[in-house]
Amino acid sequence: MRKWRRTHYTDQLGPEMDGQEVVLTGWVRDIRDLGKICFMVLKDRRGTVQITAPKKVVGEELYEVISGLGRQYCVAVRGVVRAHPEAPGGFEVIPREVEVLSKARYPLPIDPTGRTPAELDVRLDARVLDLTRDEVRAIFIIQHEVLRAVREFLSKEGFVEVFTPKIIATATEGGAALFPVKYFDKEAYLAQSPQLYKEELTLSFERVFEIAPYFRAEESHTRRHLSEFVMIDVEAAFTDAEDVMEVLERLIRHVFKAVKEHCRKELALLGREDLEVPQVPFERLTYDEALELVRSEGFDVPWGEDFPTPALRALGAKKPGFYFITDWPTASKPFYIKPRDDRPELCEAFDLMHGWLELASGGTRINDKELLIRRLREQGLNPANFEHHLKTFDYGMPPHAGWAIGLARLMMVITGKQNIREVVLFPRDKFRLVP
Amino acid sequence: MRKWRRTHYTDQLGPEMDGQEVVLTGWVRDIRDLGKICFMVLKDRRGTVQITAPKKVVGEELYEVISGLGRQYCVAVRGVVRAHPEAPGGFEVIPREVEVLSKARYPLPIDPTGRTPAELDVRLDARVLDLTRDEVRAIFIIQHEVLRAVREFLSKEGFVEVFTPKIIATATEGGAALFPVKYFDKEAYLAQSPQLYKEELTLSFERVFEIAPYFRAEESHTRRHLSEFVMIDVEAAFTDAEDVMEVLERLIRHVFKAVKEHCRKELALLGREDLEVPQVPFERLTYDEALELVRSEGFDVPWGEDFPTPALRALGAKKPGFYFITDWPTASKPFYIKPRDDRPELCEAFDLMHGWLELASGGTRINDKELLIRRLREQGLNPANFEHHLKTFDYGMPPHAGWAIGLARLMMVITGKQNIREVVLFPRDKFRLVP
Repeated sequence: MRKWRRTHYTDQLGPEMDGQEVVLTGWVRDIRDLGKICFMVLKDRRGTVQITAPKKVVGEELYEVISGLGRQYCVAVRGVVRAHPEAPGGFEVIPREVEVLSKARYPLPIDPTGRTPAELDVRLDARVLDLTRDEVRAIFIIQHEVLRAVREFLSKEGFVEVFTPKIIATATEGGAALFPVKYFDKEAYLAQSPQLYKEELTLSFERVFEIAPYFRAEESHTRRHLSEFVMIDVEAAFTDAEDVMEVLERLIRHVFKAVKEHCRKELALLGREDLEVPQVPFERLTYDEALELVRSEGFDVPWGEDFPTPALRALGAKKPGFYFITDWPTASKPFYIKPRDDRPELCEAFDLMHGWLELASGGTRINDKELLIRRLREQGLNPANFEHHLKTFDYGMPPHAGWAIGLARLMMVITGKQNIREVVLFPRDKFRLVP
Repeated sequence: MRKWRRTHYTDQLGPEMDGQEVVLTGWVRDIRDLGKICFMVLKDRRGTVQITAPKKVVGEELYEVISGLGRQYCVAVRGVVRAHPEAPGGFEVIPREVEVLSKARYPLPIDPTGRTPAELDVRLDARVLDLTRDEVRAIFIIQHEVLRAVREFLSKEGFVEVFTPKIIATATEGGAALFPVKYFDKEAYLAQSPQLYKEELTLSFERVFEIAPYFRAEESHTRRHLSEFVMIDVEAAFTDAEDVMEVLERLIRHVFKAVKEHCRKELALLGREDLEVPQVPFERLTYDEALELVRSEGFDVPWGEDFPTPALRALGAKKPGFYFITDWPTASKPFYIKPRDDRPELCEAFDLMHGWLELASGGTRINDKELLIRRLREQGLNPANFEHHLKTFDYGMPPHAGWAIGLARLMMVITGKQNIREVVLFPRDKFRLVP
């Protein structure tokens, strides 16, 4: 079995440990052989430490081993901490034994020190090596904290975490852009969202959330779309759009606070020390107000249509922070969104925006079966395909509302990254299926 | 927008609130019209309350509305709490206003009170109605706590939560039982596990975990297999099998403690008040020892083979709690498991068992590229199909180990349910693709 047991991470060492023997494991970041003395920078996931090997002290044999190491070799080092004012952090480690746990082979596809920058596509091809850079890994350490904070907040608000199926028999919101799966002898699809399931579950759990991957055969190749993406979905009985918007804005604020508090180092690595915790409530613009703003910027968008990207960019220039767009034209939103009672051409839907980026969308749902069937037909969908879903409206379906926010888009806002591929470990798009 | 705002859940009411007006929302559980007085049991997700409507007090009109309600109608009730020693909990609510938010249509496919039991298949066909029963919903409230406790424990142990792709280009462990996906113009598959990704990520994160759905075209129809299932996956650099077994057994103990502490009510609903928090370390049996035990029970299993179900059942009868089976024959385990240095016909793999149920499997992984290529060939796999994965072993792959535990199987052990379909909201198997 295993010979080496790490006693410390590099960030647990210090000059006060002068004379103490430690075992470190990690990777060779840099190696500098001056003939009589060899310096190695050893890196683990929490930091780096200088290993100093004077030939006279460590002996010929060990010196040979150390000076023969290459960048990105995986090694274990047994050595003694020595306080040394001129070394980084005021100390160094004098090695007694070094074992190569695994070699690297050259040339490496990208420079793991980041000194030689590489294109994103090249980085993604060697993603796990790319992730050895602290400023890349920091994105995902922050994501870990975001997920923790999201679940903490939603659990406190009474939401129950659920898992709904990703292999589904029918298309949720029409058949567009679904990935077909051969399911034994049947045709099935990959879920684009948990929409219908989460709505149904309000009948028993009242409040549910799910964080899971979804799939969309996205034909357009943009910097903010992927064909596989993680969504945070929420649905709550006995609420309407305004209630769940309030949950959403408080959640965003909670997440930003948690990241500021627990990810200082990571934010600094990304140059985001000044990340601002947003104030609530977020501004609410109606669709009509947003349309007017967009038109005043010279974009001739007809009423009832979604905003094209250039119009969104103009809107984002005027509204750089978080804001909601509410009261969308009913025809522009999915069948399950509740039309307004007073003006049925508008509906109780909202989008959460950050600048020009759409982060989340949601709304009050229809809980009346007849109205739902009518809306399905109006959108050219066949109610027979929704038989199982519609049946659940015979069981006393409560009024309910909810939303979904894309995890990666939220991560773009927090990290300031402009391409969604930066904030996803192994992105999937029309052209990328590996690694 | 919405008219009713719930002021209290049913479990927040009590006789001490005598005279206070409240708004409740929920479902009609029972209705009993005695002519001059009508009793309704109103249910929400946290309990029930008796609504008492004397005709003389509430008036003819409201009496008509209340006595006309049907089971499982979704309603809002505005009323006044009245202390009343003979009512359940010592109080009742005298209604002032009742609104039907949504009706139920009869006959309901199953009895939501559970008084008329139904077969599991019938229940699963009407799953969201089935979930209105407290003892069914309790399973998933416990699951919420299990997930919370798992993430809490792993985060404290330094593991970073990650999401790896579910659409993959190549088969992870051979091509058996994969679901094919049409990915634009390419052929792809649904991931059976995050195995290769999580191993690769130890190169940068050192310690990662993922909780996500996976997919396996399981031909056999058993009470413990599904074709879509959630796995908890863990992988750690600079560890071996024994290290991660220790993480796993402590995790199990932490989860059981958390469930005992936070889910008393739910355990009681399931008749599991006496759930025992297991002691660690769990017993370790080698494969050879387990084989001997099985043979002593009359099962003639040849050395090197996995245990067939009847042999496992015999083993489980002797070992009813948690235990590990270690030191498996190398040929019986996947290519990435590290053979023992001293006896390469055995490998550093383990299974975590509970009685006869396999809960988890894991082991030390190979981190040497040449050995990995040899093992791929020995298992009849083509290294060329693993090109992207193998490349990462050129970047200084650390020694690493890990495991995966099936969430639903863990839930079976905690809840005592014998069929995995009981502990999954919407199970998927060869014959079930809806709801």
